[in-house]
Amino acid sequence: MTTEAKALAGVKVLDMTQFLAGPYCGLTLADMGAEVIKIENPPGGDFVRIAVPQINGVSIYYENMNRGKKSVTLNLKTKEGKELFAKLIAEADVLIENNRPGVMERLGFAYEDAKKINPGIIYCSISGFGQTGPYSQRPGYDLIGQAMSGAMSITGMEGHVPLKYGVPIGDVLGGMNGALGILAALHHRTRTGEGQHIDTALVDGLVSSMLTNTMGYLVTGKVPGRSANRYFNAYPYDSFSAKDGEYVIACGTDPHFAALATVMGKPELLEDPRFNDFVTRKSNPHMDELKAIIDEWSSDKTVAECVELIMSVDIPVAPIYDIKQATEDEHIRNAREMFVEVEHPVAGKITITGNPIKMSATPTTPTKCAPLLGQDNESVYGSLGLDAETLKAYKEKKII
Amino acid sequence: MTTEAKALAGVKVLDMTQFLAGPYCGLTLADMGAEVIKIENPPGGDFVRIAVPQINGVSIYYENMNRGKKSVTLNLKTKEGKELFAKLIAEADVLIENNRPGVMERLGFAYEDAKKINPGIIYCSISGFGQTGPYSQRPGYDLIGQAMSGAMSITGMEGHVPLKYGVPIGDVLGGMNGALGILAALHHRTRTGEGQHIDTALVDGLVSSMLTNTMGYLVTGKVPGRSANRYFNAYPYDSFSAKDGEYVIACGTDPHFAALATVMGKPELLEDPRFNDFVTRKSNPHMDELKAIIDEWSSDKTVAECVELIMSVDIPVAPIYDIKQATEDEHIRNAREMFVEVEHPVAGKITITGNPIKMSATPTTPTKCAPLLGQDNESVYGSLGLDAETLKAYKEKKII
Repeated sequence: MTTEAKALAGVKVLDMTQFLAGPYCGLTLADMGAEVIKIENPPGGDFVRIAVPQINGVSIYYENMNRGKKSVTLNLKTKEGKELFAKLIAEADVLIENNRPGVMERLGFAYEDAKKINPGIIYCSISGFGQTGPYSQRPGYDLIGQAMSGAMSITGMEGHVPLKYGVPIGDVLGGMNGALGILAALHHRTRTGEGQHIDTALVDGLVSSMLTNTMGYLVTGKVPGRSANRYFNAYPYDSFSAKDGEYVIACGTDPHFAALATVMGKPELLEDPRFNDFVTRKSNPHMDELKAIIDEWSSDKTVAECVELIMSVDIPVAPIYDIKQATEDEHIRNAREMFVEVEHPVAGKITITGNPIKMSATPTTPTKCAPLLGQDNESVYGSLGLDAETLKAYKEKKII
Repeated sequence: MTTEAKALAGVKVLDMTQFLAGPYCGLTLADMGAEVIKIENPPGGDFVRIAVPQINGVSIYYENMNRGKKSVTLNLKTKEGKELFAKLIAEADVLIENNRPGVMERLGFAYEDAKKINPGIIYCSISGFGQTGPYSQRPGYDLIGQAMSGAMSITGMEGHVPLKYGVPIGDVLGGMNGALGILAALHHRTRTGEGQHIDTALVDGLVSSMLTNTMGYLVTGKVPGRSANRYFNAYPYDSFSAKDGEYVIACGTDPHFAALATVMGKPELLEDPRFNDFVTRKSNPHMDELKAIIDEWSSDKTVAECVELIMSVDIPVAPIYDIKQATEDEHIRNAREMFVEVEHPVAGKITITGNPIKMSATPTTPTKCAPLLGQDNESVYGSLGLDAETLKAYKEKKII
């Protein structure tokens, strides 16, 4: 029943984005089989082509973000460059851009302009704060979004400064929301012929992801603070220390706690009035006291031993992996194909991150590396009718 | 040019999920206009219907996660319940489930079973570890995913324990990846008629979101640690203290730093060999020394004053909002419609989180509250041919 075609075969995407949020949107579509043409500024292209780490001068940041895409160079500040871009838009299904609002308009390619060229175009703008509103002109980075969404205020330890998440999640959410909008718009266009403008912002995506965090304040007026690895509504739901590292237990209910106490060889905890029901257990100082008991219990065991024991009674438990352990884990790396190798003409075999959406009929696993800068100039511009001589002249005039 | 139709009008989704990841997938489709029928176990339905906070006994957690959906009750352990479910599957485009792998098979409704009823069905499974691999049977919660993906190992302060992100981001990413897969599969089915099984996992989504965090280790073998709010590749990129709170600066380049030093009234920093170039500035003890200088500068100013001054020279800067500030910010709340009011028959006017994907032709802003338990039994089951008497009998027999 598996066909070899990918889900988005035949969909043509112009990806004129840089850094992380926009490229993540484009790579999602590329993994799903869209023809994604990355449009890069000559002479250097996407800024992250020079990012470290590199292998033989090839940026792995760029590779991860742009696997499976094509690359053309194009100088949108030249008259000929604008003409070429208009031709590309005429034949495209989707355009993705992550410039600061106003930039595309000044280049002559705002949504309204693109729509005149191609009424069905699906035009996706990803920015820090969105196309509208008083902050739309502010520069938006992941850290800025994490700060203003309120996410940092609930990350970290009580009594210490607010902390960012170590993952640039605002960028990733921005890219994913862009891709969701594009795919929904594609469905709408298939039915109606109508294109549209999608406007998504890093801050919006972060705020949306926090819907369980904000609702408490909205109902009760109580502003949540930071509680490290604890969850206000259950205990033990926290991190603990074994002799060789840290692990987490997510133990919600009374039956779960009974199983945990038993497997720890501490049935007396179930008689202890501090811990013997859900509500008493999740209030301090009982949480601190229970944490000390569990830490003490695990202090002479390895993380692996603690995890195996606790998992034997089906309580959610896990080691806190460092990056090495996560990338080398058999389940994550191989069974789930979350780290895959692709062949690169300059860097050789490189390991990139796999696609998290496993589809039975239309594979998503990345199989192709990212493009060399401008490697598809001939084929893409050739298909628009430009001959080799013109391309050579354009190259010399820094139009492409 | 705006049509009143939403992007996914006409798409019928059976959402048999609970808690967060699955419902977030369904709400994304509901906001986009799909008919999402939530299938809930009698008598209580989704576990989060009893979650706090509540208004007049209505869980706001449930409201946020299930806005715009319909609700039917269905007991899948009864013969009649199974027959009804088969009829629902026959007429659906999409089924979303977030049970532990194996549960749907035991109920008689694994993908292969559903496909026999409806060959075009798009069947999306969201789980902690995925449908395949050695950990597939493990219970998966957000905290478990954050621990095993490596995300916690890079979140927190140097010398302190690994920390979770305060946002249940593993759940949110799982739901978004499910929705991405569904929309791509819908496009594929429109072209080819072929349905498929989508398998996505919380851990997979987290690992994918970390692609810029893992690549360093994969290339250099160096395991990244925790660095609070700093970024290894630029300084000052950090949080700082003003007299009434904290704020962040994301200052990358030398020209940015020159503008910052100037607006701070400290041009001498540009001559200081510790700070006068990109590379020296981002190495310690210079980072700590520069942080102290900036903290001292802002110690007699409010966050608002610091942000306004630094923003005047177009350096990325932002207040670290608490949840109150984030939900009340004019740009976030109103201009971007990230908090919207809906009317609920029992709770009255309630504020829920808006949709982050703004689409010019097909609106996504939620306008309807979540359903009361089983409120759509009559219309949904009625359309399958069940009369009022049968429904009454089914209700009494706890089939619905």
